[in-house]
Amino acid sequence: MALEPGDGPEELVATLRSLDRDPAVHAVLVEHPLPAPFDFFRAVDELRPEKDVDGVGARNLGRLVGQRPVHVPAVARAALAIARHYHLPLDGETTAVVGRSTTVGLPLALLLASPPPGGNAAVTVLHSRSGELARRLAGARTIFSCVGRPGLLDRTNVPEGAHVVDVGLSSVPDPDRPGSQLAVGDADPRALDGWAGSLSPVPGGVGPVTVAELMASTVRAWRSLVRGEGVA
Amino acid sequence: MALEPGDGPEELVATLRSLDRDPAVHAVLVEHPLPAPFDFFRAVDELRPEKDVDGVGARNLGRLVGQRPVHVPAVARAALAIARHYHLPLDGETTAVVGRSTTVGLPLALLLASPPPGGNAAVTVLHSRSGELARRLAGARTIFSCVGRPGLLDRTNVPEGAHVVDVGLSSVPDPDRPGSQLAVGDADPRALDGWAGSLSPVPGGVGPVTVAELMASTVRAWRSLVRGEGVA
Repeated sequence: MALEPGDGPEELVATLRSLDRDPAVHAVLVEHPLPAPFDFFRAVDELRPEKDVDGVGARNLGRLVGQRPVHVPAVARAALAIARHYHLPLDGETTAVVGRSTTVGLPLALLLASPPPGGNAAVTVLHSRSGELARRLAGARTIFSCVGRPGLLDRTNVPEGAHVVDVGLSSVPDPDRPGSQLAVGDADPRALDGWAGSLSPVPGGVGPVTVAELMASTVRAWRSLVRGEGVA
Repeated sequence: MALEPGDGPEELVATLRSLDRDPAVHAVLVEHPLPAPFDFFRAVDELRPEKDVDGVGARNLGRLVGQRPVHVPAVARAALAIARHYHLPLDGETTAVVGRSTTVGLPLALLLASPPPGGNAAVTVLHSRSGELARRLAGARTIFSCVGRPGLLDRTNVPEGAHVVDVGLSSVPDPDRPGSQLAVGDADPRALDGWAGSLSPVPGGVGPVTVAELMASTVRAWRSLVRGEGVA
């Protein structure tokens, strides 16, 4: 069942319901944000947890709170995987997540706060209303930024030696190529050079690892649905 | 459909499925923890979100992450209601939740981090592995403790003037009445007297407010199911 130009929210819901029933389909990803009047969460909740491969439906997010996840949002898995790969301080350490979005900041905070294989960290969730970022980040050894605000993190708020995993993604005009856009993260890499313990780049950091994690989740979904194996 | 002594997990699941279908039933609470081999979460997930009145099923917890809750666990609502009633510092303030359980600590942290009517706070989730409680609580203006460990909070780790909402509940032998038990919280009230900004008592604090919040949620469930009104 394919969507046509002009189809509305009901057609999207019906399409996802049909994909959920189709035994030849093992994983479904709904790109978002969706424009009004589409309701992303209503649509994705049509999927059974095993097919909701990016783990953003209510049942998958609830199972993440319950520390018995089926699929965890790939971007959160990617941020944790990068931190683990480079042995950044997590277990029992003070860790900050800047941004409280449903599909990125909060799932990442829950994953970092979970017992192993989660981050097992002491996690602080900050958001645009919890100002005074410098004071609140003072004790953080690893910072995950998921806001989408270029230049948010620099020497004025990142503690010297702290590690930054940059989950932000924004487009800004390219100063060297008028009319072109550059992809940038939340951190100012020039300001943090020689100051932060480490900084994951944008582009080329969390983004490609997210794609890899999503493919891994897709294989797990197939295993679960076809072979009856557990997803986790 | 009533459960009989000797019934097992399958009968519990069947009972909840039956209650979920019964139009004369508007709200169901499953007491927990359940002894093995019962699986509390598997059982409660048989309920539609509107009937899962304590908001502990995966769909309700997921909708809390999604900041579009149907029912929020009553104990989390109660802790927030007490903090609001006494005008404790929350909005944009450094707030700590000690304990990361699925039914208490994590839902409370999510509710405190949510935009209004949530707490809109900068929330730190601490747990038994994030030691050095004193250092981690240093900047907290309001502390919610949900561990169930008597004497956990005293002058050595609560900052002077900080407010403590005590969500912990434990039984200890009553020194004045041999053979009897006393209900106590996580905080040591004698140690914090004249030190903490305020301390909610145990018993007589979060407990009775939780009962009131559960009754309020039950009325909302009835309104939603019978009148078709939104729950929130």
